[in-house]
Amino acid sequence: MAAKFVSERNIKFLLYEVFDVESLTGYDYYREHNRKVFDMVLKAAVKLGKDLLFPIFEEMDRNQPELVDGEVKVHPSVKTIMKEFGEGGWIASRFPFDKDGEQLPSLVADVCEFIFSAANYSANAYPSLTFGASHLIDSFGSKELFDTYVPKMHAGEWQGTMALTEPEAGSSLADITTTAEPAAGGYYLIKGQKIFISAGDHDGVENVVHLMLAKIEGAPAGVKGISLFVVPKNRLDDNGNLVSNDVAAAGVYHKLGYRGCPILQLSMGDKNDCRGWLVGEPHNGLMYMFQMMNEARIGVGMGATAMATAAYYAALDYTKARLQGRKLGQKDPHLPPVPIIEHADVKRMLLFQRAVVEGALALIMQCSKYVDFQKVLGAEDREKYHLLLEILTPIAKTYPSEMGILSISQGLQCLGGSGYCDDYPLEQYYRDCRIHPIHEGTTGIQGMDLLGRKVIMKNGQAFLYFINEIEDAIGAARSYSELRGFANDLNTTLTDLQDVTQHLITLAQQQGPEAFLADATLYLELFSIVTIAWQWLLQGVAVQKALQNGAKKADQNFYQGKMFALRYFFSYELPKTQGLVRRLMSDDQLTVEMQTDFFND
Amino acid sequence: MAAKFVSERNIKFLLYEVFDVESLTGYDYYREHNRKVFDMVLKAAVKLGKDLLFPIFEEMDRNQPELVDGEVKVHPSVKTIMKEFGEGGWIASRFPFDKDGEQLPSLVADVCEFIFSAANYSANAYPSLTFGASHLIDSFGSKELFDTYVPKMHAGEWQGTMALTEPEAGSSLADITTTAEPAAGGYYLIKGQKIFISAGDHDGVENVVHLMLAKIEGAPAGVKGISLFVVPKNRLDDNGNLVSNDVAAAGVYHKLGYRGCPILQLSMGDKNDCRGWLVGEPHNGLMYMFQMMNEARIGVGMGATAMATAAYYAALDYTKARLQGRKLGQKDPHLPPVPIIEHADVKRMLLFQRAVVEGALALIMQCSKYVDFQKVLGAEDREKYHLLLEILTPIAKTYPSEMGILSISQGLQCLGGSGYCDDYPLEQYYRDCRIHPIHEGTTGIQGMDLLGRKVIMKNGQAFLYFINEIEDAIGAARSYSELRGFANDLNTTLTDLQDVTQHLITLAQQQGPEAFLADATLYLELFSIVTIAWQWLLQGVAVQKALQNGAKKADQNFYQGKMFALRYFFSYELPKTQGLVRRLMSDDQLTVEMQTDFFND
Repeated sequence: MAAKFVSERNIKFLLYEVFDVESLTGYDYYREHNRKVFDMVLKAAVKLGKDLLFPIFEEMDRNQPELVDGEVKVHPSVKTIMKEFGEGGWIASRFPFDKDGEQLPSLVADVCEFIFSAANYSANAYPSLTFGASHLIDSFGSKELFDTYVPKMHAGEWQGTMALTEPEAGSSLADITTTAEPAAGGYYLIKGQKIFISAGDHDGVENVVHLMLAKIEGAPAGVKGISLFVVPKNRLDDNGNLVSNDVAAAGVYHKLGYRGCPILQLSMGDKNDCRGWLVGEPHNGLMYMFQMMNEARIGVGMGATAMATAAYYAALDYTKARLQGRKLGQKDPHLPPVPIIEHADVKRMLLFQRAVVEGALALIMQCSKYVDFQKVLGAEDREKYHLLLEILTPIAKTYPSEMGILSISQGLQCLGGSGYCDDYPLEQYYRDCRIHPIHEGTTGIQGMDLLGRKVIMKNGQAFLYFINEIEDAIGAARSYSELRGFANDLNTTLTDLQDVTQHLITLAQQQGPEAFLADATLYLELFSIVTIAWQWLLQGVAVQKALQNGAKKADQNFYQGKMFALRYFFSYELPKTQGLVRRLMSDDQLTVEMQTDFFND
Repeated sequence: MAAKFVSERNIKFLLYEVFDVESLTGYDYYREHNRKVFDMVLKAAVKLGKDLLFPIFEEMDRNQPELVDGEVKVHPSVKTIMKEFGEGGWIASRFPFDKDGEQLPSLVADVCEFIFSAANYSANAYPSLTFGASHLIDSFGSKELFDTYVPKMHAGEWQGTMALTEPEAGSSLADITTTAEPAAGGYYLIKGQKIFISAGDHDGVENVVHLMLAKIEGAPAGVKGISLFVVPKNRLDDNGNLVSNDVAAAGVYHKLGYRGCPILQLSMGDKNDCRGWLVGEPHNGLMYMFQMMNEARIGVGMGATAMATAAYYAALDYTKARLQGRKLGQKDPHLPPVPIIEHADVKRMLLFQRAVVEGALALIMQCSKYVDFQKVLGAEDREKYHLLLEILTPIAKTYPSEMGILSISQGLQCLGGSGYCDDYPLEQYYRDCRIHPIHEGTTGIQGMDLLGRKVIMKNGQAFLYFINEIEDAIGAARSYSELRGFANDLNTTLTDLQDVTQHLITLAQQQGPEAFLADATLYLELFSIVTIAWQWLLQGVAVQKALQNGAKKADQNFYQGKMFALRYFFSYELPKTQGLVRRLMSDDQLTVEMQTDFFND
């Protein structure tokens, strides 16, 4: 197994040279931190990944969770992981000091999660979900809920989950049927079924805390009648002892990948004794949940990026070591074979992977920086960065998920037949990564969210901010002759994106929502390529700055490689927008007109 | 599990309406056959697929082959399958009557294999490889070799294989090191290692017959020193009994998918007692092997098409049954949910799959028809169809392999979370199909074969024939108003392809082979899209003919669906050529210029 799963050099390049995380320490909220602290945190994260998570990456896959006598057995290391993440302060790293957190900038905390996910995506799911759930309780729950649950969760003793999906309501949350009946004692009696709940039950913790959507009896139909509850697996009795809360593990799914983490089917209230505690106000649950959901969506994008990053380094490692064939034009069979990385087609496959994973990571960190800005800036700026996050969330979720699959597949291809066998980790990455376009809202859902909601929200204000950010980057890039051509190419494509957007909005007005959104997935793809090109341009600016300031000799290869990856993106990926634009400007509404019966025979 | 894995209606449409297999019976060689015979054969193939192969599709995956005490244990049904395929005449179906074959047109025999592969790809690998090996013996081996091996192979008692790859020589056959030392008695002593040998050993047959490449001592270096041998697992002694031939099963690979068929590491001559019998002349082995290899390449394309076809019907089945959400614009949560096939984005995903799998199947059958033409036509026409097969082989291998992965992935996506779980077959198809861009020459190898060999062979004659075929189809399509727009679009893209080809040939002359072939994989992709568009246009012509002739009411939905799939291909897939053309016309040789050191850090 390859020893390297992330590039620390690249992480520092993005943190310090592109996104200038140090500038955050100029704001009051982050003034306790400095680069030395960040470097130490990063070092600790890499060490944890290397020592604890990466060594069991395959083992957790080979020994998948099983439901035994009503309890889900997971890899024994999960207990250690949760304990270490709790004691090390990793689960609460984004929480403020006064809530026993580390008050770390999201940029830093998110990069640490990226490192953990690259080392072992399944392993990181446990603490990551726990943070998402504790953050949700903190944001909208009472002090009593906070005090009862959050310290245990942050200590890694109790698992957190998000429990939305139901058997008859996958992506359509309006149709959930889990009920909540008010009871004396300040709680509700919960009854229903949930499916696909990640880490929904396991023996690595003493309790599981579900942040669960349900409908209070008499609530309005549809999404406006959904409330949010804390529903623990075990509740505290009057003596402070944990007793069963009537949440049964009804089944554990056998999955293609992502096998280190169980996905559960849960049954609540089989004995009419499942208690839930309301979070915030009744019927506001979906709005609350969307905080966790949005974080989770970016989290999926980060995880997908991390997985594809680890796969890239595994492929890179192989191509440097594997000798085969000769350079084209060297026909003499007596010449020794060369490492396959010297073949142009292999370099192309590697550059594709690098362009995807480093472009995607930049986007994820761009989002992290916006989260940080929301914490430190004034109201008007906060609104701006909130809207930028809103519009970028479907991209940050989907681009790494969809392109991560292709990137990992190219990584597998670099190994030829060996990539197909389980002696190498590529086949596992290929299985693991296929979850990403599905969980936390499928790609189709993300497309509709982007075009049908985010692009048109507040009269297109989010979209305008997005355009402005890119135009700023284009402006900055144009001051470097090495980047001018790329800046111009992106500018042209940005105009294409605006034209397509206008065309679709007109279509919406003339023909209604179905015609408007029929190709939302393609629109998302177009939007994503523009977004990643922007992120590559930002990286190009940072490289050119560094080179102008006389970069260290040891950094020269890194910067050269960056420029080649940038060139790759603009030369091979950006042109893909042409076909997308062509289709998106078309008036042939064939997917709308297609009828079910025509699929017969 | 879905009951349907192929569309018999579509198979008949292609066989009778597009490729007019009946016209072959006008030639002497096929005069014994008629449509009734073909229909019976098809019916028998579907029945065999349904009764024997499809029911164990999952079971063979869940119980993968293991090496136990030097013997490879496979699913017990393999013995039955080989027996049934032998007794039913399926292995020898393409052999002439006078060699105890069925003398079936390739069009029909290949469609039967398509049916078997759709039912269970791994299961079909056993008889299919056996035919490839027996065909090779028949084409180039002596009568004695034929008589010793072929009848047993055609009876399904002995397995055939192709044994090329070695540990230190994957795609680079010039570097194989397996040796053959002439011995008294008319045989050679074989010594060496082979890896990745499909069905290279198993307990479903009493013997395995390897068609193996090796170098006779003193042979020229490189590919010009390779000879072909028959190397059986067990050889016949003087009494006609099978005795061990010193071919050891050294290891069985644990693979991502394609688990119903073992892939072996073999060791020959550990006891200096492995005998091989030369096929044809010394040092001509690679040329001979390319007969089997070319058949195997088209076979991979067919298998990939078949797998993606089965996955498509499984996805289609799910989307018709699964209720979720409402039509866009219907906001009332009291309305009942609709089958997800009614959502435009789901229809888009299904049309993508259909456009890929039916386009790919047409191409495979186009190749079959060329094979048939070579059997029945005069020398000049034979050369033409030989060249067309040469140029289409890398496309027929690669397009279904690469696009099949994407198609199956979209099929999986149609099922959402369920697609990721092993309660449905999509996850298996997703694993199984990943072998196709690897075995029988990777996609990178196919790209170089197409551009570096086939396009320029015989002064571009193969390429010219290819252009002519497409221009003929464009001409035919232009007589139907419904097809004129598509015909014009293809015509434009065909010109693009010619421009790109000219550009690359000029590049070769100016800058040499590395610059010429650096983007051969992208060239292959461009070439493939043009090829599949041509196949869709041919199908469109057949549909329009049928509609003009007053198609039966029962066929109307089928023809409508065909036209939508055609529109999909031209509206969503053909535009992808624009980005490819843009890149291929670029002068930035970045993948050539990229240096290994720039991948550091």
